[in-house]
Amino acid sequence: MAAQRRIDVVLDSVKRLLRIGATANLLNLLQKQHPADLASVFGSLLDTERQAVFSLLVERNGRLAMETVSEMGPEEGAKLLTGRSAEEIAKLLQEIPSDDGAALIDYLPEELSAEVLELMRRRESGEVESLLEYGEQTAGRIMNPQVFALNEDLTVAESITALQSSRDVEMVFYLYVVDARRHLVGVTSLRRLLLVSPETPLKRIMTPEVTSVRVDTDQEEVARQVASYNLLAVPVVDEENKLVGVVTVDDVIDVIKDEATEDLLRLAGVSGDERISTPAGEALRKRLPWLAINLVTAFVAASVVAIFEGTIQQVTALAIFMPVVAGMGGNAATQTLTVVVRGLALGEVSWSSARKALAKEALIGIGNGLALGVIAAAIAWGMKSDPVLGLVLGMAMVVNLFVAATAGTLIPLGMKALKVDPALGSSVFITTFTDVVGFASFLGLATVFLRYLV
Amino acid sequence: MAAQRRIDVVLDSVKRLLRIGATANLLNLLQKQHPADLASVFGSLLDTERQAVFSLLVERNGRLAMETVSEMGPEEGAKLLTGRSAEEIAKLLQEIPSDDGAALIDYLPEELSAEVLELMRRRESGEVESLLEYGEQTAGRIMNPQVFALNEDLTVAESITALQSSRDVEMVFYLYVVDARRHLVGVTSLRRLLLVSPETPLKRIMTPEVTSVRVDTDQEEVARQVASYNLLAVPVVDEENKLVGVVTVDDVIDVIKDEATEDLLRLAGVSGDERISTPAGEALRKRLPWLAINLVTAFVAASVVAIFEGTIQQVTALAIFMPVVAGMGGNAATQTLTVVVRGLALGEVSWSSARKALAKEALIGIGNGLALGVIAAAIAWGMKSDPVLGLVLGMAMVVNLFVAATAGTLIPLGMKALKVDPALGSSVFITTFTDVVGFASFLGLATVFLRYLV
Repeated sequence: MAAQRRIDVVLDSVKRLLRIGATANLLNLLQKQHPADLASVFGSLLDTERQAVFSLLVERNGRLAMETVSEMGPEEGAKLLTGRSAEEIAKLLQEIPSDDGAALIDYLPEELSAEVLELMRRRESGEVESLLEYGEQTAGRIMNPQVFALNEDLTVAESITALQSSRDVEMVFYLYVVDARRHLVGVTSLRRLLLVSPETPLKRIMTPEVTSVRVDTDQEEVARQVASYNLLAVPVVDEENKLVGVVTVDDVIDVIKDEATEDLLRLAGVSGDERISTPAGEALRKRLPWLAINLVTAFVAASVVAIFEGTIQQVTALAIFMPVVAGMGGNAATQTLTVVVRGLALGEVSWSSARKALAKEALIGIGNGLALGVIAAAIAWGMKSDPVLGLVLGMAMVVNLFVAATAGTLIPLGMKALKVDPALGSSVFITTFTDVVGFASFLGLATVFLRYLV
Repeated sequence: MAAQRRIDVVLDSVKRLLRIGATANLLNLLQKQHPADLASVFGSLLDTERQAVFSLLVERNGRLAMETVSEMGPEEGAKLLTGRSAEEIAKLLQEIPSDDGAALIDYLPEELSAEVLELMRRRESGEVESLLEYGEQTAGRIMNPQVFALNEDLTVAESITALQSSRDVEMVFYLYVVDARRHLVGVTSLRRLLLVSPETPLKRIMTPEVTSVRVDTDQEEVARQVASYNLLAVPVVDEENKLVGVVTVDDVIDVIKDEATEDLLRLAGVSGDERISTPAGEALRKRLPWLAINLVTAFVAASVVAIFEGTIQQVTALAIFMPVVAGMGGNAATQTLTVVVRGLALGEVSWSSARKALAKEALIGIGNGLALGVIAAAIAWGMKSDPVLGLVLGMAMVVNLFVAATAGTLIPLGMKALKVDPALGSSVFITTFTDVVGFASFLGLATVFLRYLV
């Protein structure tokens, strides 16, 4: 990829300039980069190098330093800040929008974050602190409270003047219109202002229906609205419909990516916020609980096998084919589970389509079971010259693949109904379930047909 | 969710009005909805209902009908169109942007799509056809060729006039500046036009560095650029740097969602384009190959067990604990695999960080192996009153979890190096791998210690 190659070149230069101490050249190079690219470069530097480069930026170009920190994501960014004094952090945080600031503070060590907040409150409006008062993963938490709004009584000419003097507002896609008490009453666009004569009242050219979200709306719902209505931003209102902020599409993209990552990781029994850069100790702590649950469930499967120990003692060949039944069931269930979980995440599943999906998956389960069961039966017959053993394996596979498909549909739907994230550890439970059903049906059938088995 | 509830209410009303034949009321209700909401409603209607509602819209409000079809996604949308004549489809397609049209045509039955294209070519510029000439999943395929551009020799006043007369352009976030031969030379914004005097030459207020992509850039790379630079749109140029289109952020959101879905599904051995609404027959056909591969690999694992059949014959209890070793290895490997695959997809992994990740995962593997191995050993000892059996199980778990972690890192990195999608079926291969290693180490160690086992 061209972009990756460019970043690698910058990375090499940064390392070299740092080594030879060419500070002026280094600063010059850094200032030519986009903060997002600098964040990538930072990610590949050694800890000591990263601190050195960051210190240089803090000293010479605080804004760029903090924009880079923002782009690194709050967790990594906060780590870079942690070594500094509360005074310095409070000052640096003024360089970035308060939603980004709030996210960073959230990841600072508790004592430090309290100090920083205290300092910021004394200094300015307390915007960051009020953002932190909203629940996690809500619109209030990710919105930018600096939203540009026009009073409904203005004319177009007055609106343009107001806009010209609002240098602070970075991106103005939609012009929100509010009444004297800041209730959201309409929306218009820059382009529409240009299409009418200057004395036109704003009220005449605004659209009174505005899609908005409330401060306590879940960020996933915000993302869904922005995505499905193709919006560039959505205004955030409080419980009285007063305009308090705006969520822009770039924040929504981050939400969509994070939610997809979270789903993917949770399905595999990994905590939703683990990244490849998470230190070994922390990753171990986060993964161990799932594996511990899995250990318990694995022993449940083992106990099922233990019930049939007598049968295995008489026909040792059964042990050979146990992994086939269990493995196939686990994989078929994971296929179904993943399709259903993703469908739920994308909002494609209603209760009526869920019934249809269940019927469909049951059908697929039987179809797969028959097709693969026949092949497996033939192979087992060939390997052990025992047609009954083949028959038992084939039948067990039909049972297990049918159960795998229905359970793979019902488990996530049930979790959704119980308002638990369907992605959460579903695969651990489903594979145990198919192990248990697989061993029980295979060894159970073998016990029934024991007298015909060699 | 409030939005879902609202859609359910609309859905019920649509069904009711359709049943009693209240066409005027129905049309009235439909026209009040956003196309994205209508697409959701369409998704929950029965086939006959959907056709009836769609026919009504086609007759009375062709634009809304086609906007709804666009929002349904090309596959579902094309199904709705398939029953109609090529003439009608060609006419309807004029109601939507040509990138959406091209996507729909791509999913029509081959004969019909050829006819429609032929009709469209005769009628207009052939825009749709030329979009279809770009490779799949490239910028050229998802761009909108109707991009508004200003000539570099204009003044600000002339630019505003040009903008006022371009009623067709839906969203103008960035104003791209081109030279006489349509080479992309700069970018500016509406807001900047308003901040300077009308006679200022455009050249003076434009930014000459524009982030652009080429028609053949992969859509995933386009999405990465838009997301990391927080862009609302990115211009698309041909090999001579001539401006030929624009990809907007709403298209990028679709790409990001699709790519995340694809990764998630592929990891589970499901084809990347399967959805919960995919018919049973098609889903079966798409999943069966992966399960067939899995059947082969499952028999590979079975063959490993077969090697040790003699050992199992002497100590049947080994069969009981086989699922524990294999299951734990499979789950630990899936954890590692998922973190690495997602890191690769998000572009967070460089070759230097890959080495660090491998070391980290190996460490986690040993840590998990020791912690869980000790517990598993104790349980097995308790269950079978045999300390040596416990010891063998514990040691096998340390080996298997270490191998699981390293393989979980190396397999996706290797696939990436071979330019194969690391998500593709990785989990099928990794679970076989951990099955083989698990059985080999557990039964192999048991064979070595056979004389000490009860």
